[in-house]
Amino acid sequence: MIGYPNAKPKNIHSKTQTSSSNRGMTLEHDLNLTNEYYLDVDKAVIFKKPTPVQIVNVDYPKRSAAKITEAYFKTPSTTDYNGIYKGKPVDFEAKETKSKTSFPLKSIHPHQIEHLKRVIRHGGIGFFIIRFTYYDETYYIEASKLIDVYLSHEHSSVPYNWFQENGYLIPFSLTPRVDYLKIIDCYILKEVKYE
Amino acid sequence: MIGYPNAKPKNIHSKTQTSSSNRGMTLEHDLNLTNEYYLDVDKAVIFKKPTPVQIVNVDYPKRSAAKITEAYFKTPSTTDYNGIYKGKPVDFEAKETKSKTSFPLKSIHPHQIEHLKRVIRHGGIGFFIIRFTYYDETYYIEASKLIDVYLSHEHSSVPYNWFQENGYLIPFSLTPRVDYLKIIDCYILKEVKYE
Repeated sequence: MIGYPNAKPKNIHSKTQTSSSNRGMTLEHDLNLTNEYYLDVDKAVIFKKPTPVQIVNVDYPKRSAAKITEAYFKTPSTTDYNGIYKGKPVDFEAKETKSKTSFPLKSIHPHQIEHLKRVIRHGGIGFFIIRFTYYDETYYIEASKLIDVYLSHEHSSVPYNWFQENGYLIPFSLTPRVDYLKIIDCYILKEVKYE
Repeated sequence: MIGYPNAKPKNIHSKTQTSSSNRGMTLEHDLNLTNEYYLDVDKAVIFKKPTPVQIVNVDYPKRSAAKITEAYFKTPSTTDYNGIYKGKPVDFEAKETKSKTSFPLKSIHPHQIEHLKRVIRHGGIGFFIIRFTYYDETYYIEASKLIDVYLSHEHSSVPYNWFQENGYLIPFSLTPRVDYLKIIDCYILKEVKYE
């Protein structure tokens, strides 16, 4: 699960030019707007999957909608987002952290690692989008790189500067807010130059 | 939503050789087993998306899991299944009907039609899996064909024989139960001959 809906970014002097415009928005919210934009301009077909829920009890009141009265959150068996870009399967997990120093690996489920390994093996574009809310920076990380770190079992968290060195900083704009397809174009498909 | 969990197939003399082994299983159940098999043998990465639910109220009891106490089913904005096969995006909706004569189009949401149009436009393999439980027959239908009928607004349902003429009957076996990738291999990618 991504998102800290109640988190308020601290009043810091951020190093990034764009931080003030982005404050207070969760990564999930930004990605939803971004994916809607991609749909609207017909650039890609990427959706967030619904939150997996185990439904235990449902009431069917007369003349109104079925009401779920008992349900529990389930551990996701895949990533949160997938879809199609330029004929290719795209699949990613998005997380944000409030930490200034590192990203905690425990926020990624082993299922999701397994899933992204499969995605890569079957020819999809697999990646992570990781936001450090303190710096208001959002990174695109190729799945294979973070999986290597995850599977090395050496660390329970990955230092912030690892993301600076191994990831691509996703530029922030108003529309789209988190333009991760630009990173795919420039660095993964290498079709266009980064502007 | 697919599945009639309480439906019991009638005791008919089915024309298909395979019907008796398949009786009483919902299409959703069969597809889950099929997709698990594809995962196990590393043939494809295809999952059913979780049922979309609007969560209204959650209790957080001490020392136990969060309990959702009020939630409602939402209209899906996409299809139920998607994933990757041979490097290509795969996306489909599955439905079953008890009707002997026709498939009711109202069981497909306009959102799902729109979504499958996008999938095709962006280079994915989009299709429907439609089961006539009475005959115990499961058809693979290219999305474009059923969308054409859907958008023609001439009929509220599609006759059973339309599926015989325009679809591909998916062979039933124990493992995998609904081998729809065989149809993709033979008729969509046209890489191998149908055995």
